[in-house]
Amino acid sequence: MAANGPTRQTIDKEAYRARVPELRELLLEAQFDLRERQTGALLLILAGPDGESKAALGHRLCEWMDMRFIRTEAFEAPGRESAGMPWLWRYWRALPAKGSSGLFYGSWYNDLFLDALDAGQEPLAFEARLRRVNTFERMLSLEGIRILKVGLTPANGAAREDASADREERWQELGYGQPGWDELVATAFRITSTGHAPWVVIDGEDPRTRDLSVAEMVLEVLSQEASGASDEPAASAVFEYGAKTSEAVEPVEPIDPDEYSKKLAKQQKRLDKAVASSGFADRSLLVVMEGVDAAGKGGAIRRITEALDPRRFSVHPYAAPSEHERRYPYLWRFWSHLPTPGHVGIFDRSYYGRVLVERVEGFCTPAEWGRAYGEIRDFEQQLVEGGTIVHKFWLSISKEEQLRRFEDRQTTAWKRHKITDEDWRNREKWDDYQNAMGDMIARTDTPDAPWTVIDSEDKRRARIEVLKTLNRRLKEGT
Amino acid sequence: MAANGPTRQTIDKEAYRARVPELRELLLEAQFDLRERQTGALLLILAGPDGESKAALGHRLCEWMDMRFIRTEAFEAPGRESAGMPWLWRYWRALPAKGSSGLFYGSWYNDLFLDALDAGQEPLAFEARLRRVNTFERMLSLEGIRILKVGLTPANGAAREDASADREERWQELGYGQPGWDELVATAFRITSTGHAPWVVIDGEDPRTRDLSVAEMVLEVLSQEASGASDEPAASAVFEYGAKTSEAVEPVEPIDPDEYSKKLAKQQKRLDKAVASSGFADRSLLVVMEGVDAAGKGGAIRRITEALDPRRFSVHPYAAPSEHERRYPYLWRFWSHLPTPGHVGIFDRSYYGRVLVERVEGFCTPAEWGRAYGEIRDFEQQLVEGGTIVHKFWLSISKEEQLRRFEDRQTTAWKRHKITDEDWRNREKWDDYQNAMGDMIARTDTPDAPWTVIDSEDKRRARIEVLKTLNRRLKEGT
Repeated sequence: MAANGPTRQTIDKEAYRARVPELRELLLEAQFDLRERQTGALLLILAGPDGESKAALGHRLCEWMDMRFIRTEAFEAPGRESAGMPWLWRYWRALPAKGSSGLFYGSWYNDLFLDALDAGQEPLAFEARLRRVNTFERMLSLEGIRILKVGLTPANGAAREDASADREERWQELGYGQPGWDELVATAFRITSTGHAPWVVIDGEDPRTRDLSVAEMVLEVLSQEASGASDEPAASAVFEYGAKTSEAVEPVEPIDPDEYSKKLAKQQKRLDKAVASSGFADRSLLVVMEGVDAAGKGGAIRRITEALDPRRFSVHPYAAPSEHERRYPYLWRFWSHLPTPGHVGIFDRSYYGRVLVERVEGFCTPAEWGRAYGEIRDFEQQLVEGGTIVHKFWLSISKEEQLRRFEDRQTTAWKRHKITDEDWRNREKWDDYQNAMGDMIARTDTPDAPWTVIDSEDKRRARIEVLKTLNRRLKEGT
Repeated sequence: MAANGPTRQTIDKEAYRARVPELRELLLEAQFDLRERQTGALLLILAGPDGESKAALGHRLCEWMDMRFIRTEAFEAPGRESAGMPWLWRYWRALPAKGSSGLFYGSWYNDLFLDALDAGQEPLAFEARLRRVNTFERMLSLEGIRILKVGLTPANGAAREDASADREERWQELGYGQPGWDELVATAFRITSTGHAPWVVIDGEDPRTRDLSVAEMVLEVLSQEASGASDEPAASAVFEYGAKTSEAVEPVEPIDPDEYSKKLAKQQKRLDKAVASSGFADRSLLVVMEGVDAAGKGGAIRRITEALDPRRFSVHPYAAPSEHERRYPYLWRFWSHLPTPGHVGIFDRSYYGRVLVERVEGFCTPAEWGRAYGEIRDFEQQLVEGGTIVHKFWLSISKEEQLRRFEDRQTTAWKRHKITDEDWRNREKWDDYQNAMGDMIARTDTPDAPWTVIDSEDKRRARIEVLKTLNRRLKEGT
């Protein structure tokens, strides 16, 4: 602010002493309440170049609150463990579960500041990344994580003049003191201080004022009702033109068994070679396999995995989230199984459940699945930018073919475990699923993370198509 | 989408004939209902390079709906009238009022596409601007404007190979056919297809399908309940640490009258010169004057205006919005009085009313004033980027001084019109206003659009300070 600005009153010793005992009790109560209700979490980010001040504040908060329910994470400059992984990956892994609190020393802002200072990034590029952070923080907030960001301004004279700081020091201090730092701070504040995740700038000079102010804010955020509601007018604005797409797949001839064996062997060999190649060493491949029940997902996946060195792939079947998983944002359980460099990850069903089964069965609100399309596009874009090749398959069969396969499963002893009452129930909602599928493809088919709809009426032909498609993507991408 | 994708079914002649009469009736009803309730507006954006298809679709919609309540705007490449004005200015002026509909041929997306193609902009810069558009569209949506964006893909073979198109043609066609166009479209779709303002991509080839699909979507959007609600957890996340700031202004000596006259004349001369200088010809200055009742806003403004050539400034006093103004987003009435290049605009009270009087008096919801801080920062940033120098003053007086001035106004005949019952009522909420002021300054004081808090206990000294501050800003800025 310009000259003549108001200065913050400091809190004197007596006021401090008078307030602290009550405040501590209220904080513990609020923590307990959060734990009881399990509807939300708290994420407190301590930022700013003054490490000592951050540490002192963090210790004080842990002293006043119940430490057992606070997960503290001190992020260092990104190291080997996150090389080749998407930018936000390590922060996702550290998110607090519902009912608990997270205390972050350092955060995604450190990366942004250093990258901008190091690359002399143009302002719009910095802004683009800040606005991505907004989108990310907004999503966390809508998923129940209440975010409070505290920026501690350094005490006078603490300015680092020393340009020789190493990367780790600079990371901790967000590059404080480098030319352009002030502008970055101003831009970051302007763009990322939102109702979902406000910035509170605190003068670190007076510890009493600092600790008490932040604790009061933590109390206020803890006492908030979980908003949960999104303002995204989803149900009404997502147009149900999906239904028009369902039966448009052309009928195909079944493939000859000999021809199948030959083609399969050829494609599998190509796949193995591509994944073992040096060009793939710093890339990874994520295969998303979706389709109605009995569409042949398992069989197609097996034809991929049997081609590969077992150390190079992992398959993650996703069913309904567990109780534990429900304590995190819905994308969380997918972040934790992303393929690392040189590896293939296969999701047997995936985060698209949000806009398929969860939409159709009403497991989430229209506002929730409505915003999921954009969230998923953002998520996949992060993977792509992190070096992952993303490919998504929808295995398509007709309603009649599904019936034949269901009946076959019921009469064949070793297939009987594959058919449940739920499959029959889902079948009754065939049109709803087709409709949701159409919307999903219309809204999430992007050049970098495309969908391929595979006619799976003939399973064998479908498997060849899947392998061919992957080989083509790998050839383009590595 | 990759190969084997589903193709959209086209609507056949019979289905079309069967549906149209009913659809038209429903559209008219929905329009009438929108008009009755006055809670929202519709903004339909027709985009895409195929001008003929856009025109045909627009005509059809106007035929099916009541044209009297549709405002059609065809935007051409930006011309002289918007030179030196912020980017979005001409679109703000064309927004539909609540109860009505707007049909835009072309929009802010045209600017973004051409700028990106012309400048060979780096992808993150394009993304930053797209994400700004998201923020803008989200705000419009929360303010009651339901946005539907229709992208008409060109019929096959319509591709423009001809690189010689002039700027106007290229603007209309969004630079279709230039290298990089496909990537821009993909990025724009990925980032800006939101629940608030979804993109619907329609094949322009079959007019029946095109017209009927879009009309059905218009009906759906018209029939939506105005959401109005924001998910921004404002009230709880905006921390009331403003109260701590109120009385921190240092007491000052009253200025000597002779000294005042001399200093005033000097500063006024400097101001006049700066505004008349050639360096200011393509800049503009926006002065925002805020403060409690009787703080001396009018007097300070007069000392600015009496220094200036009357053709070079305009003063806009803002009281409660009129019924007409309430039919637009709250920032709309400020957009229409922005200073043009070479001019000074003075707002006597301003858009900050949203987070002052409207907050304190409960004229808007906590969610509404909560999101206003960020909206105002974005708004001011657009002015700054458009070349405007923005400066904001808070004239500060003590509660005792206000009482003296109120009493003086009541006893002085020619000042009596300046004091009303409302002033006394506002005074009762002194602490609430001070609190709101503190939050406002903490959240909207940015280096490019700073606040200066002026101690106005001595009116004369305050006036000199205002002039001095403006002269300093002008010197730095021109």
